[in-house]
Amino acid sequence: MRIILVYDVGEKRVQKVHKFLKRYLHWIQNSVFEGDLTTSELEEVKAYLKKLMNEDEDSIIIFKLKFTNYNKEILGLEKNSISTII
Amino acid sequence: MRIILVYDVGEKRVQKVHKFLKRYLHWIQNSVFEGDLTTSELEEVKAYLKKLMNEDEDSIIIFKLKFTNYNKEILGLEKNSISTII
Repeated sequence: MRIILVYDVGEKRVQKVHKFLKRYLHWIQNSVFEGDLTTSELEEVKAYLKKLMNEDEDSIIIFKLKFTNYNKEILGLEKNSISTII
Repeated sequence: MRIILVYDVGEKRVQKVHKFLKRYLHWIQNSVFEGDLTTSELEEVKAYLKKLMNEDEDSIIIFKLKFTNYNKEILGLEKNSISTII
């Protein structure tokens, strides 16, 4: 399924979260990742993030899109385009 | 249509962008907004953001979802829930 994941975590954990997510998803902006995951990959991602994060301070939102026919528009810089990776 | 908007703009412009977007969408995390816009509202939002932003430095990504049947999962804090507003 197509995933958009946005995170807001304490400064100490930013780099770890970023590095981990890069193994599964494409970094598209600041603290935003996008990509396709299987259900089991998503479970791996969630399990690891839950271990890593401080659930009292951090927030991670995962949008799971059942249809991939959404439209993405970028104003300004395209910091890292998924289309150049896939 | 359902919109997810994520922004990464220079520090000087963060507050202005945030304040403007709150008039149209629901703030759900750090630099992430979600909500429903008509086509003309989206055009207003884009026109204003384009004026406000520095297109050589800033990045704003707008996901336009044609179907609203996506699923949102939150790990950790729910900083501002759309469900409590609508």
